[in-house]
Amino acid sequence: MAKEHSGLLAPLRVNTRIGEEIYQLAAEIYPICRSITGDGVRRTIDVLTRHVPFRRREIPSGTAVLDWEIPKEWNVTDAYIKDAQGERLIDFNRSNLHVLNYSVPINRRMPLSELKAHIFTLPDQPDLIPYRTSYYKESWGFCMSHHQLAELERAGGEYEVVIESRLQPGALSWAEYLHVGETADEVLLSAHVCHPSLANDNCSGLALLTILARELARIRTRLSYRFLLVPGTIGSIAWLAENEANLGNIKHGLVVSCVGDAGGPTYKRSRRGDAFIDRAMTHVLRGSGTSPNIIDFFPYGYDERQYCSPGFDLPVGLFQRSQFATFPEYHTSADNLDFIRAEHLGASFRWMAEALDIIERDRRMVNLRPKGEPQLGRRGLYTAIGGDRDAWTRNMAMLWTLNLSDGRHSLLDIAERANLSFDVIASMAALLAGHGLLAETCGST
Amino acid sequence: MAKEHSGLLAPLRVNTRIGEEIYQLAAEIYPICRSITGDGVRRTIDVLTRHVPFRRREIPSGTAVLDWEIPKEWNVTDAYIKDAQGERLIDFNRSNLHVLNYSVPINRRMPLSELKAHIFTLPDQPDLIPYRTSYYKESWGFCMSHHQLAELERAGGEYEVVIESRLQPGALSWAEYLHVGETADEVLLSAHVCHPSLANDNCSGLALLTILARELARIRTRLSYRFLLVPGTIGSIAWLAENEANLGNIKHGLVVSCVGDAGGPTYKRSRRGDAFIDRAMTHVLRGSGTSPNIIDFFPYGYDERQYCSPGFDLPVGLFQRSQFATFPEYHTSADNLDFIRAEHLGASFRWMAEALDIIERDRRMVNLRPKGEPQLGRRGLYTAIGGDRDAWTRNMAMLWTLNLSDGRHSLLDIAERANLSFDVIASMAALLAGHGLLAETCGST
Amino acid sequence: MAKEHSGLLAPLRVNTRIGEEIYQLAAEIYPICRSITGDGVRRTIDVLTRHVPFRRREIPSGTAVLDWEIPKEWNVTDAYIKDAQGERLIDFNRSNLHVLNYSVPINRRMPLSELKAHIFTLPDQPDLIPYRTSYYKESWGFCMSHHQLAELERAGGEYEVVIESRLQPGALSWAEYLHVGETADEVLLSAHVCHPSLANDNCSGLALLTILARELARIRTRLSYRFLLVPGTIGSIAWLAENEANLGNIKHGLVVSCVGDAGGPTYKRSRRGDAFIDRAMTHVLRGSGTSPNIIDFFPYGYDERQYCSPGFDLPVGLFQRSQFATFPEYHTSADNLDFIRAEHLGASFRWMAEALDIIERDRRMVNLRPKGEPQLGRRGLYTAIGGDRDAWTRNMAMLWTLNLSDGRHSLLDIAERANLSFDVIASMAALLAGHGLLAETCGST
Repeated sequence: MAKEHSGLLAPLRVNTRIGEEIYQLAAEIYPICRSITGDGVRRTIDVLTRHVPFRRREIPSGTAVLDWEIPKEWNVTDAYIKDAQGERLIDFNRSNLHVLNYSVPINRRMPLSELKAHIFTLPDQPDLIPYRTSYYKESWGFCMSHHQLAELERAGGEYEVVIESRLQPGALSWAEYLHVGETADEVLLSAHVCHPSLANDNCSGLALLTILARELARIRTRLSYRFLLVPGTIGSIAWLAENEANLGNIKHGLVVSCVGDAGGPTYKRSRRGDAFIDRAMTHVLRGSGTSPNIIDFFPYGYDERQYCSPGFDLPVGLFQRSQFATFPEYHTSADNLDFIRAEHLGASFRWMAEALDIIERDRRMVNLRPKGEPQLGRRGLYTAIGGDRDAWTRNMAMLWTLNLSDGRHSLLDIAERANLSFDVIASMAALLAGHGLLAETCGST
Repeated sequence: MAKEHSGLLAPLRVNTRIGEEIYQLAAEIYPICRSITGDGVRRTIDVLTRHVPFRRREIPSGTAVLDWEIPKEWNVTDAYIKDAQGERLIDFNRSNLHVLNYSVPINRRMPLSELKAHIFTLPDQPDLIPYRTSYYKESWGFCMSHHQLAELERAGGEYEVVIESRLQPGALSWAEYLHVGETADEVLLSAHVCHPSLANDNCSGLALLTILARELARIRTRLSYRFLLVPGTIGSIAWLAENEANLGNIKHGLVVSCVGDAGGPTYKRSRRGDAFIDRAMTHVLRGSGTSPNIIDFFPYGYDERQYCSPGFDLPVGLFQRSQFATFPEYHTSADNLDFIRAEHLGASFRWMAEALDIIERDRRMVNLRPKGEPQLGRRGLYTAIGGDRDAWTRNMAMLWTLNLSDGRHSLLDIAERANLSFDVIASMAALLAGHGLLAETCGST
Repeated sequence: MAKEHSGLLAPLRVNTRIGEEIYQLAAEIYPICRSITGDGVRRTIDVLTRHVPFRRREIPSGTAVLDWEIPKEWNVTDAYIKDAQGERLIDFNRSNLHVLNYSVPINRRMPLSELKAHIFTLPDQPDLIPYRTSYYKESWGFCMSHHQLAELERAGGEYEVVIESRLQPGALSWAEYLHVGETADEVLLSAHVCHPSLANDNCSGLALLTILARELARIRTRLSYRFLLVPGTIGSIAWLAENEANLGNIKHGLVVSCVGDAGGPTYKRSRRGDAFIDRAMTHVLRGSGTSPNIIDFFPYGYDERQYCSPGFDLPVGLFQRSQFATFPEYHTSADNLDFIRAEHLGASFRWMAEALDIIERDRRMVNLRPKGEPQLGRRGLYTAIGGDRDAWTRNMAMLWTLNLSDGRHSLLDIAERANLSFDVIASMAALLAGHGLLAETCGST
């Protein structure tokens, strides 16, 4: 078994164009104005479905889901603030961040005094437009740079304030794709699809999961992989409500967002704290040559909040580069296509693929010659000594694997104890198994 | 329940005069010459009984208590060393530390050569009178500053050495007060009453416990509170011997001494090391803005030695400011009324009250909407975002409480995990319970 | 019991000549050319048997032992490289390291070009001869200093290359000595006997174990002590194969090598990691006034690799001064009699004796007066206070022992918790037992 799967994810790791492909896809969906409902989500799903046969799900406004209710559907076609001369000082067509997400429609002339209560800026970052929402309280507003506000104040007089939006019964949409593996055990991979033009948060996550799904679709896997592109909070709550009966299949999971910048990597553990995904991600990131930020669960962030609520307590962590809310570009117009890079997306992809590889390949082996060391030299397994660092590592990996394959330690346990990569341990385990020195025990990890 | 008790101890914490009241009471008992038996103890109890209806207990000399026997009662009325001219060079009336505590009577003239074997000084702290005792070996002696010894030597000739003391059958005395709460579960609060004019060790502890008892007497509590003012070692041993059958009621306890100086705070864990009082005191002191000294149990110190002997192993810790035997004033005449301050006594009181508050209020709650997050905004629970640090803390406290209220975590568990104060967690738990989102599980912590 | 054994190992620790005796014995066996088989091993055993009645065991070539087979026996009588003038440029008689250990015979003239493939030097340590072996692959070769190689190259012309060795059916030899104690429980003490003239690795270990066996032979012990001097790897494997049925008796064990240099001390834990020997050695070394290097098990090193293979998993650690392969003299001609010192051998002996002392004396005691502290003063046990540091330590040792002797803590547990030496705890336990305050529980640790 170990042998059979060992190479399955290998191609993913060597495709040097993966990062570039993810970037291009992120760039393609970047301009779309998304929200938690509406056509922006549908258009985004349409684009991604060109790569992976996502199934779009819709659930009508007003449906009760857990403690929540599906809200009205929101769509916006135009929005602006014109000065007395009819010039558009603020124009939705230039940035969809300008509209407070989920604004009710407005079309009135008003003085600055009245308008100002509906304007959001970032005085400390005067060049940037903030991203703001008002999903569950009916309101309207404009987000703009602090410089734009100053300009607007200079214009004076009355302003024509228009938001052409509709807030009416419709549906909540999400995308789902299941890659069926040999077992019903599932890996849940989830990204939020509700943010408008923010590149890292979360065009990067949507594009990465889409390309990962495309690559997985080509290969045979032991586990099944469920990809979810859901509006934040309400989307995962709706999905959980609809799929409550099948959650027992979910053995591992990751929420993915902000995977395209140069920071981190960051991994936030599942609520359980010692789930296998927590150990696999930690192993990969600690061996990545970076200084990863591995943090314990806390009940704030993305949809891991819902997956890790106490009534579900799924083994789902959060993978990011820079941790959300800690970088200055977060939730501003500076989270644009310059902020993310193909190389960072590629590295994020690779680390996730390595963690999935561990999930696929980990198992418990037993040493069939457990009394004393078996004579490796006779079998040509012991690499000659010399300055060869790789040979040394392979020899140590063999010795560790033989010593700890007592039925209690899995390959990941051994890799952690030996402080060697899972990959070299799994490879040497396969080699030793090929020489009749190891056998797989019944039951994987 | 949570709501009902939440404010019970609150008044204790806001009475800004508490520190001053404790100081005044400590000052009142400071001049009395106490020992492990005798009228000094009785007079001290009399003073304290003006504030709290302490019950004085007496147990006759010669009574066997555990491995010990109640000693003869000791009283001293006068003591001095006169020079050849009849001038009192050392005078008990100036400091009761001058007499080796439990000295047998003496009335003789003698030269320095004979006297010197009975003199105790601190050559490294030549201005200070040491505090010395000889409870269980009949002896006599004088404690004095090293300067006084030099003066005495200068006087020369024969000295008239007088200690007017009586060591004869009598009784051991202690004070006890029980504040009866809703349950028979008891909190034991113990201070030693045997030291003469030492302000921090332990007029401070006697006064603090008396004022705490006075305040508790005014309110309804869940637990019962037993206050013990006992002579060190023999007093707690006598009490343990008399109350062995009821020790099972003691669920928490603190020995208190040296609570008036500027040092520490210090908390020495119970022998168990993970008793609830250990966690409560650690939580309070770590959140106090100081750098507390939290130390593991060791079998030396105050009466926690007896309460934590292996045959009893009660959950009793030791609370101090500066740790005993680590400050230069310890067991010297410099441990006087200048060494303690109302503000420090007030802070010590506050921290103890906060720990008792945790004991009173901790419980396990269960999230009644455990699947996904409940929609807090709809219920007006989610405070609007902004620069409001307190609002952020309250929001996080709600999210943590909901996430961890799974029947396994108590409110203190949650506070520790969230790194938030018990108070904010307990307050938010009460708020959530009021909105039907949490319920108390049967059985408190 | 505690009393009876307490002094058994004491003489070992005070014999100030022990270090010198070990050194002299190491020096005596240093010149012998040992290998994993052959007369060098037999001669070494003969020398050591003058001090201890070792039993020599032989097992014929070709015998299957676990996954291995006893190799042919190797003996060498002479070896050299002569230049065209017939001068010995390299001469086995000057250093037995010159011959690649287990070289097949050779007797040919050849040019440098052919010879060079069979020469081993250390270019980074040009003065030193390396130690190399080729046990399981038939080969021949010469080890020399890099300077010697240069000299040889300067000589030019053809070389006469001679190794007078025999590789033929014979036997594997080892030495074994069992000191029988009161119980069948055994302590295994093992050293490798296969290295030629290397003083630290492992004449030091062989000599130390021999002198330790000699000393133990004189006294009564609770446990039995099995001393093994075995060729590395194949020797321990052969012994394990022959003694598999009795391995259950081995309760503790140490592999010993490189115990004569100034480094370390180093202790490598058994595979179990928490075996009693691991705790005993850690306690001794951490209390030794050095900065010991305590490391977890890893499956590389000496014969602990075999004892700790998963099919045996014996509680055997490795004791060294400098850790193998970390000091520049390791496996070179610089590991000579100047590199080891009597004082270091003596200290190594002392620490091992202290650890064995803990094994002999550890037990669980119960406090017979567990309620409150017993009155030590009445029994004359409480040493008067004063500047006496030892008295303070003894008092604290009594208090700790009384407090923790609850049937759950052994004397070593208490010593670890109290951060006091096992010796003072065990001595005070014996004293308290003599006063009827402690009794041994049935069953030792």
